[in-house]
Amino acid sequence: MEKPYVIGIDMGGTGTKFGIVDAKGEILGQGSIVTPDYPDINDYINALYEGVLPLVEKTGGFSKIKGIGIGAPNGNYYKSSIELAPNLPWKGNIPLGDLLKAKFNLPVAVTNDANAAAIGEMTYGAARGMKDFIIITLGTGVGSGIVIGGNVLYGHDGFAGELGHTTIRRTNGRLCGCGRKGCLETYASATGVARSAREVLENTTEDSLLRQIAADKITSKDVYDAAVQGDKVAKEIFDVTGTILGEAFADFIAFSAPEAIIIFGGLAQAGDLIFNPIKEAMENNVLPIWRNKVKVLPSELKASDAAILGAGALGWEAK
Amino acid sequence: MEKPYVIGIDMGGTGTKFGIVDAKGEILGQGSIVTPDYPDINDYINALYEGVLPLVEKTGGFSKIKGIGIGAPNGNYYKSSIELAPNLPWKGNIPLGDLLKAKFNLPVAVTNDANAAAIGEMTYGAARGMKDFIIITLGTGVGSGIVIGGNVLYGHDGFAGELGHTTIRRTNGRLCGCGRKGCLETYASATGVARSAREVLENTTEDSLLRQIAADKITSKDVYDAAVQGDKVAKEIFDVTGTILGEAFADFIAFSAPEAIIIFGGLAQAGDLIFNPIKEAMENNVLPIWRNKVKVLPSELKASDAAILGAGALGWEAK
Repeated sequence: MEKPYVIGIDMGGTGTKFGIVDAKGEILGQGSIVTPDYPDINDYINALYEGVLPLVEKTGGFSKIKGIGIGAPNGNYYKSSIELAPNLPWKGNIPLGDLLKAKFNLPVAVTNDANAAAIGEMTYGAARGMKDFIIITLGTGVGSGIVIGGNVLYGHDGFAGELGHTTIRRTNGRLCGCGRKGCLETYASATGVARSAREVLENTTEDSLLRQIAADKITSKDVYDAAVQGDKVAKEIFDVTGTILGEAFADFIAFSAPEAIIIFGGLAQAGDLIFNPIKEAMENNVLPIWRNKVKVLPSELKASDAAILGAGALGWEAK
Repeated sequence: MEKPYVIGIDMGGTGTKFGIVDAKGEILGQGSIVTPDYPDINDYINALYEGVLPLVEKTGGFSKIKGIGIGAPNGNYYKSSIELAPNLPWKGNIPLGDLLKAKFNLPVAVTNDANAAAIGEMTYGAARGMKDFIIITLGTGVGSGIVIGGNVLYGHDGFAGELGHTTIRRTNGRLCGCGRKGCLETYASATGVARSAREVLENTTEDSLLRQIAADKITSKDVYDAAVQGDKVAKEIFDVTGTILGEAFADFIAFSAPEAIIIFGGLAQAGDLIFNPIKEAMENNVLPIWRNKVKVLPSELKASDAAILGAGALGWEAK
């Protein structure tokens, strides 16, 4: 009999979530551990095993599991490793795939979190049936997963698809965590939006709900809450953010001519507030052959499940 | 017996070159016709046939020909057509593949000129053995061919890889032929270099060989000739051009993580004059994970043969 389940693991800097997933994208059971609680990677692997074991037992044992897929920051698909991930407790290169394989005695595939989201979207979400699309994840950072002809683009070294670190402002660009200036991430991430909020508030005398919050405490969530109440300044902040994203998307289209660009993460929840300026700027900046041709869509996966589903989907082809 | 030859056709706005190519990349015979001499596409196809026929007869007849590959401006691989090419005498969509198939009774594959160059480079040139690389063609315009996992990237509609029309200057960008502003092409094409020459000459009082030429007559060839004679201003023009290319390359790497970026066309002949500033700017702008990792190489194909070779290589897999 075909093995009916996979294990999907979503490793993040703060938490690691995992679940048992079936072929339809149902999560049959899930759990989590606190990533930084395990400064030794071996303890982390053991804790993961202890967390997963009862879920596996509930669904019929390890003989029903086809493989493990794991999405991890700086996860490298080719090497099944994590390399130099700044937000994880382990330094250097971690042979994550080998460690999991040894512990679970199952095939393992490793990728980064944005690529896992792309696979999830293609298997269960807004990109079902698409062979060429890009997913942009808007969170603490800006990540991306690029799908070409039905396959995730890994490039010659496994690191392709760092669209959050393409340069969108070459003059007076904001300093990025990567050490460079003007990266898309510095404008379109949650912290980028908060930063734009402070700039917009400084540059106008317009009244705003956001002025009730200390400038250095404003979050992208506050901007959203104000915008849905009709706050003009908050809407302006979404316009600024969406315009920059749309400009960037026009260049991404010139590269890979995707059928759609799918937006995943908190900011995608803002609906028209962010999608309208994105689409407008994208259409204004894209080469004429692509005008009114490339879709911009919100993710169709529940944010809390997407990475588990995506990583799980990768588990089907793990070796 | 395997059919040992293909026909490679390089269609340009001024001339169309064609040749019979063997599996090793030898051109066994070649000829050309003047593209705008045939305002009717059917006359063009007939003239092409008349030109190719004696070459085919010399190499053993049509039974030895596996297929035809043709690189054409705005050539679409999926549709085997030319769509809205501004520099060709025929308007609208031309079903080039069908017309050639009907006339030659051979399998035909159509692509654009930069993709043909990429295939040529992969089959016979600097990208032999590479599966992930980008070729940038620097000519009247700036074209590109992107290879992912050994396949040319066509995108969902066949038009992917328009890197000459990614935006490299968002503020005060130069007006591009495509109607947009700040495209890479407006800086790195032959006309872009000539334009930079006029700007640099205006912005300095430094003496230069280029001042002997009327400002509006300066060509990129003049800049090259002056630079090899040690002209400081001409070198500065190459620095400006190379820096912009290097900045653009850093973003291309973030997209597809290629093993190499290969430069094809007149400007590539300038050697260190252009390669040094490109490499310096690319390394200064690329994300740390790719530092000193991605090669920048000159094409290894003779400029006059590359497009015939590339189109020919496409002919092997024509259907």
